[in-house]
Amino acid sequence: MTSHSNKLFITPIVLVTLISISYHISNAADFCVADFDIGFQTPSGYPCKNLSLVSASDFKYSGLVTGGSTANMNKVSIIRAFVQQFPGLNGLGMGAGRLDIVPGGAISAHTHWYASEMIYVVEGTVTAGFVSGVATNTVYLNKLSKGEIMIFPQGLVHFQVNTGTDTAVVLATYGSEDPGTQIISPALFGNNLPSFLVEKATNIDEAEVKKLKALLGGSG
Amino acid sequence: MTSHSNKLFITPIVLVTLISISYHISNAADFCVADFDIGFQTPSGYPCKNLSLVSASDFKYSGLVTGGSTANMNKVSIIRAFVQQFPGLNGLGMGAGRLDIVPGGAISAHTHWYASEMIYVVEGTVTAGFVSGVATNTVYLNKLSKGEIMIFPQGLVHFQVNTGTDTAVVLATYGSEDPGTQIISPALFGNNLPSFLVEKATNIDEAEVKKLKALLGGSG
Amino acid sequence: MTSHSNKLFITPIVLVTLISISYHISNAADFCVADFDIGFQTPSGYPCKNLSLVSASDFKYSGLVTGGSTANMNKVSIIRAFVQQFPGLNGLGMGAGRLDIVPGGAISAHTHWYASEMIYVVEGTVTAGFVSGVATNTVYLNKLSKGEIMIFPQGLVHFQVNTGTDTAVVLATYGSEDPGTQIISPALFGNNLPSFLVEKATNIDEAEVKKLKALLGGSG
Amino acid sequence: MTSHSNKLFITPIVLVTLISISYHISNAADFCVADFDIGFQTPSGYPCKNLSLVSASDFKYSGLVTGGSTANMNKVSIIRAFVQQFPGLNGLGMGAGRLDIVPGGAISAHTHWYASEMIYVVEGTVTAGFVSGVATNTVYLNKLSKGEIMIFPQGLVHFQVNTGTDTAVVLATYGSEDPGTQIISPALFGNNLPSFLVEKATNIDEAEVKKLKALLGGSG
Amino acid sequence: MTSHSNKLFITPIVLVTLISISYHISNAADFCVADFDIGFQTPSGYPCKNLSLVSASDFKYSGLVTGGSTANMNKVSIIRAFVQQFPGLNGLGMGAGRLDIVPGGAISAHTHWYASEMIYVVEGTVTAGFVSGVATNTVYLNKLSKGEIMIFPQGLVHFQVNTGTDTAVVLATYGSEDPGTQIISPALFGNNLPSFLVEKATNIDEAEVKKLKALLGGSG
Amino acid sequence: MTSHSNKLFITPIVLVTLISISYHISNAADFCVADFDIGFQTPSGYPCKNLSLVSASDFKYSGLVTGGSTANMNKVSIIRAFVQQFPGLNGLGMGAGRLDIVPGGAISAHTHWYASEMIYVVEGTVTAGFVSGVATNTVYLNKLSKGEIMIFPQGLVHFQVNTGTDTAVVLATYGSEDPGTQIISPALFGNNLPSFLVEKATNIDEAEVKKLKALLGGSG
Repeated sequence: MTSHSNKLFITPIVLVTLISISYHISNAADFCVADFDIGFQTPSGYPCKNLSLVSASDFKYSGLVTGGSTANMNKVSIIRAFVQQFPGLNGLGMGAGRLDIVPGGAISAHTHWYASEMIYVVEGTVTAGFVSGVATNTVYLNKLSKGEIMIFPQGLVHFQVNTGTDTAVVLATYGSEDPGTQIISPALFGNNLPSFLVEKATNIDEAEVKKLKALLGGSG
Repeated sequence: MTSHSNKLFITPIVLVTLISISYHISNAADFCVADFDIGFQTPSGYPCKNLSLVSASDFKYSGLVTGGSTANMNKVSIIRAFVQQFPGLNGLGMGAGRLDIVPGGAISAHTHWYASEMIYVVEGTVTAGFVSGVATNTVYLNKLSKGEIMIFPQGLVHFQVNTGTDTAVVLATYGSEDPGTQIISPALFGNNLPSFLVEKATNIDEAEVKKLKALLGGSG
Repeated sequence: MTSHSNKLFITPIVLVTLISISYHISNAADFCVADFDIGFQTPSGYPCKNLSLVSASDFKYSGLVTGGSTANMNKVSIIRAFVQQFPGLNGLGMGAGRLDIVPGGAISAHTHWYASEMIYVVEGTVTAGFVSGVATNTVYLNKLSKGEIMIFPQGLVHFQVNTGTDTAVVLATYGSEDPGTQIISPALFGNNLPSFLVEKATNIDEAEVKKLKALLGGSG
Repeated sequence: MTSHSNKLFITPIVLVTLISISYHISNAADFCVADFDIGFQTPSGYPCKNLSLVSASDFKYSGLVTGGSTANMNKVSIIRAFVQQFPGLNGLGMGAGRLDIVPGGAISAHTHWYASEMIYVVEGTVTAGFVSGVATNTVYLNKLSKGEIMIFPQGLVHFQVNTGTDTAVVLATYGSEDPGTQIISPALFGNNLPSFLVEKATNIDEAEVKKLKALLGGSG
Repeated sequence: MTSHSNKLFITPIVLVTLISISYHISNAADFCVADFDIGFQTPSGYPCKNLSLVSASDFKYSGLVTGGSTANMNKVSIIRAFVQQFPGLNGLGMGAGRLDIVPGGAISAHTHWYASEMIYVVEGTVTAGFVSGVATNTVYLNKLSKGEIMIFPQGLVHFQVNTGTDTAVVLATYGSEDPGTQIISPALFGNNLPSFLVEKATNIDEAEVKKLKALLGGSG
Repeated sequence: MTSHSNKLFITPIVLVTLISISYHISNAADFCVADFDIGFQTPSGYPCKNLSLVSASDFKYSGLVTGGSTANMNKVSIIRAFVQQFPGLNGLGMGAGRLDIVPGGAISAHTHWYASEMIYVVEGTVTAGFVSGVATNTVYLNKLSKGEIMIFPQGLVHFQVNTGTDTAVVLATYGSEDPGTQIISPALFGNNLPSFLVEKATNIDEAEVKKLKALLGGSG
């Protein structure tokens, strides 16, 4: 076991940690609430909050009760409950989000690469689809009503459009507390990548690239 | 072990499979809809359905739209959308369920060992909790209203009780299409394990064990 | 969340760590002995002890040579060699324990959710069993003599009873250095969860719940 | 690679498999060359070829020695060595590809979701980049010469352009034998998804969507 | 869900399978006893035995009760309980073995690449060691008595020697049911690899290579 | 790679980290460039560098452009691009290396246990092989020319010999940024393990062991 002989000069914060270590050690396999104040992540997630500071409220999240503003270009609100918003999820392989979509609005085509997504229609109706990989680029499209669920397989481009007449509310859940997200149009046009490279990378012509850059906050 | 004597009749179906092989190979990394007719599982899930037979409907599930009967001892309905009910989930690491709980009803204490569970309150209010591991057996208990979510960490005993005045509807999602489920009381009392062993394994006295065996369909 | 006010004192230990960094980096893929003094865990385990401080003794553990006291309600001794006791196991996916069971004694029904368990009978005979999942609650029960092994699949409720005439000694090993453990009766009755909730969550009647709470240190 | 010429005689092969099962069992942890003739996949890959039929040539692949035609819109050739082309990779977590890019040509923006990609410049120079996730959409762009390598993190949109004066040859390797691939423009425009849905999902205007559909083989 | 309409021509064996499918499906997450008769493996293990054929005896193994013959060059007996010998282990991530070592005998230097190994001394004393990776080739050597355990980290070369005066019996356990095993000397010398290649690959001189080839059954 | 010149000023950097935490949190699922200055690893890799300090150059590596000296016993140069050399690889599951082999030279028999290896011949010809596991010790040997690839399955002993007439250059890639490496002869003979133990562990006679110890820097 580790020798303690060279620990005489440990500063106060470390000593505080050592005093509570028996509490901390005891919860190894139970959960690991994210402690953002330690100031870094690891490939497996955030360090765990000291067990003596954990309470029931760390495992509950109320941020999805109401939707956000839909007064934007796509007429949607997206609220996340990933590990950054809901630290109790750290290391547990689940995440969530709430989507509010005004009729005619759309969650743009996007991907998540670390997990699949399952959506559940809380209110309204949505038309949702995903595209399969390079071999066929087949679209799998479903119209979903209240209470129905759909799965978007890991990594594949997908989108949701409100083709109904009332605002739709969708609960999205993920098999990761940090599934990765990339929305295609901002990823391609909402940055400073030179237009001629965007053109080459997309086969979209220069005028449209410049228009989309203007629309999505890109430059170059 | 199974006999070899009936292997002589396998040819026709194998030939059918071989004809469609070029379609089948092309979808390797996109998805793997479960094909139950092949007749067995592997540790990683069911074999994949031939791609030429897959359609959008494989990725949608309507079984959670309405709840089932709650006319039972626990006043609850549990409907699952695991891979066995929703074969599009195969290999994708997500599952779901719908819980309907009459006031005073309860989803009994149970565990899932291959994934964490996240619940979302669709209607009503529930009091939900989980118990941490052997070191402290601490209970983490939350009262949840419509739109709130809670996470039950992988493996830990948890339960949900309707402490409100209206029927509660809960969407449960899991980070596995087959998370494993064990309900504590039926696991202990709803089988033919001799009562004296149940007593030793639970510290519950013999009279109560016999009563619970009668209640939960056990014998012995 | 933790306060930032005490971060001013961190410098000395960090400098000490930096000096030895070239040693530390060299052992990336070999092993990662747990360093508890760093004061936190991550979802993948404890930070690694500096390589220059690692010796052969970090990989050996003598704590299982003799059993502990069996003068308790269940007539058993349980000694663990998980990562918290044997830090050389960190990140390596193995753990162990020694069970001593007096005739008539029992290791209570319990679960491990992050790994399967294999037992090896060192001395005596035990009757051991596990219960399958929710579909059937079938009990798989075996009588084991010296030198025999049995596997308890990941997550499933299991127990061991000494049905012989001599003290049994069992070596338990796990496919995780921190497999998670929950003993059913203390998890349900050894805490402050209100009795009426325990009743609802177990179908055990109130008088028995109160009796078990008293027996197992619970309240409420 | 497996020969397909003997598919008419599939019965004998199946019988041979049963007879040689003791050989087959012995190589469990060594490798699992894909046997496409069994006719299906599982979530973890293809069933393993009988060991008695495996030879050294199953682990070598010559398909990347020369590039393919670059007489196409993007002036590139893409040749894969995934498990479908190189069955010895099955279950081993590695894949490869050869990219030939004429000056001014480009490998279009695309994603792989099951693994990261590392490229090695065999000849020429390429400008390669990837875009980070939704928070910032930052582009990380590098100019690479012969012998240099670059990593594209799992899931992120990336592309390679030949900004030099000679044909570039690039070896791409992946941490999966079947990493999943989606090329953005064909995924959005090379299928029958109705134009109004594409517009909503991309913020690209209708005229451009129709033009891209014509260019990339889409309809609707 | 899968359509059953085209299943009219399924041959007898498939129909038999379908009849029992409701049993088979129900045990998805509980266990997956290996069914060797299906005749192939997958990268995640063997297909699962039909649940209706599984009994308690599938989870017990008696093959380690007594040791084998030690009348061989190394004066050892090695008996395995991997998935090939103990099919109940399939998919569960645990394996075992029994080592009997006569005084002066040795389990030769070897590796396991898919899991770490933990040894428990049942009788006698052994000197056991492992070598760390390429950076330092440090040896970590321990003398172990009855009841002591040692961990050999995944992949590293290790060995066990009986340096005591009585036959030693060791229980080895692994974090995989099929951990992979390669014994260094037979791997290098017990095959038909030409001697000049062995020399180059080991820096061992030709005469010794030829001698070892003769000793270990190699040729060339 | 990160500069070490600012280590004296570590306090400010820590404060900066806390101030910039909202940036840091945002890149959770995108990448995790290794920050060696934090001073320790975890079982899943190094802590992540603060996002505000990450640039495109973190994802490019030029160290493989030219080979190193081959003026050594084995007539080879081995240059690595593992996470320790190329910190952008951290957590991404890919690594690389460049091998230069003079005619008659050889990369000695070695293993990697956390990933498979794929080699690509950049120049020259090599004869490469691997040995399967304990059941058969079969050698799978291929002669590879420019542009050909070969896969060495995870864990198995393998080697590469230049059997041609010109210096060979080989790109090796791995499915791990830290795959683990053990070269057999130095692992056995390049340390202070007593000769009599090496003899027992290898069946190589004492004179040869002593000669190899002298050759490879061992003692004892």
